[in-house]
Amino acid sequence: MLKPSGKINFAPHMADKNLIYGHHPVTEAIRAGKMVEKVYFQQGVRGELEKEIRHLTREYGIPLQVVPREKLNKMTSGAHQGVVAYLALVSFQSIEDVLPFVFEQGQTPLFLLLDGITDVRNFGAICRSAECAGVQAVIIPQSGAAPANEEAMKASAGALARIRICRVRSLFSTVEWLQECGVQVVATALSDRSIPLYDADLSIPTAILMGSEGEGVHHKLLKMSDAVVKIPQATDFDSYNVSVAAGIVLYEALRQRRGER
Amino acid sequence: MLKPSGKINFAPHMADKNLIYGHHPVTEAIRAGKMVEKVYFQQGVRGELEKEIRHLTREYGIPLQVVPREKLNKMTSGAHQGVVAYLALVSFQSIEDVLPFVFEQGQTPLFLLLDGITDVRNFGAICRSAECAGVQAVIIPQSGAAPANEEAMKASAGALARIRICRVRSLFSTVEWLQECGVQVVATALSDRSIPLYDADLSIPTAILMGSEGEGVHHKLLKMSDAVVKIPQATDFDSYNVSVAAGIVLYEALRQRRGER
Repeated sequence: MLKPSGKINFAPHMADKNLIYGHHPVTEAIRAGKMVEKVYFQQGVRGELEKEIRHLTREYGIPLQVVPREKLNKMTSGAHQGVVAYLALVSFQSIEDVLPFVFEQGQTPLFLLLDGITDVRNFGAICRSAECAGVQAVIIPQSGAAPANEEAMKASAGALARIRICRVRSLFSTVEWLQECGVQVVATALSDRSIPLYDADLSIPTAILMGSEGEGVHHKLLKMSDAVVKIPQATDFDSYNVSVAAGIVLYEALRQRRGER
Repeated sequence: MLKPSGKINFAPHMADKNLIYGHHPVTEAIRAGKMVEKVYFQQGVRGELEKEIRHLTREYGIPLQVVPREKLNKMTSGAHQGVVAYLALVSFQSIEDVLPFVFEQGQTPLFLLLDGITDVRNFGAICRSAECAGVQAVIIPQSGAAPANEEAMKASAGALARIRICRVRSLFSTVEWLQECGVQVVATALSDRSIPLYDADLSIPTAILMGSEGEGVHHKLLKMSDAVVKIPQATDFDSYNVSVAAGIVLYEALRQRRGER
């Protein structure tokens, strides 16, 4: 399994199924349109290979991490030629394709934007709730997101294989783009602007923006949001777990969309 | 950490803090009113010790598990005399004390009844949401419940140390007793009787009954319940995680209690 940052753990069985390595296998996989979770590139390697890998990962929106040679050795036990890639368990889609499709289907968009949710279990649990609630796309940033790996798949009870995951270069420009397309962005956070969740109108096209438990939603994204909601609490204790919070906001959206206002 | 059944794992550091063993240390701890999570008793031991332990655990409502001598040896690395006890991280309270107190305080009871929730993380996460939502007691059965151990504490973000946990001998008689005291019992389940969550009146004194993800609420408890609610889904995908579901039901209760019906 991949951790979002720092130490990398690899379950041996994953090496067989989802790992590819070597110059041609990796570049061909990317060019063939295979879904790639992440590319690991060897520190200090220069020249054509570096150029090609940097170009391809940028073009296809694939996260790239530069790591010491020893890491690649451990991942592959051999001839990696300085580049290793993890194939994704999910098929990423483009939000620019999904949004028009949702409108064409006569559905009211309900998206989730995840800002800095790096915990794999929370990510999986959120995707499970999202699939239950009929969310049409979960939007994550290219970097700083939890990997869609087997642990996330398990936590999602399989939902990750069904729900549309859109990986975007920048949440800022995605928020802007969604708003231009008539989708309001509603952030979940405690701020001066926060209104109780049930006072927000979630029956119109909506993208719900959730931040990480530690950092919350990025202050710039918060500023860009059309509304900021807080989930009511009866005590001053801490806060709801982010996956529970996501479930609650999705419930409120469904409740309102069924005319229960 | 204790697992609810089957294999028992012990983190070495727990042995120091929460483990006591030997005839007198264990019986004295129980008599002194110390909160005991569970007592482990050696298979095949008979006589006065067995009688005393069986009597005390019954009287104080402490779960008792009979295990082979080898398990006790591993837990203690020594002179356990056939009996080992884990001190609880939380202080269990009696629902018979809590309910009158809640009424006296002028609060409207909001309880959680957990039937067969053996997953430690779910239990912890539910307690976290419960504390946020101002639940006055989480009621668990003496047997077949997740242990209130350090893993649960962590998953609860510390809520386990604040919220009232009531351990009862039988959920059946507790449900009956709550109903006699004017507290409605609302089960969360998919059944013929299920109504959408938002159609249930949760503004009156209520105990919410949650079942395990695998088994759901026991059919007899379901039958005894005053209402059965389902959380709306937009797809036929599986279901919400039980801790997410608990958070959603608690949110709906808070929403209604703030006059948002």
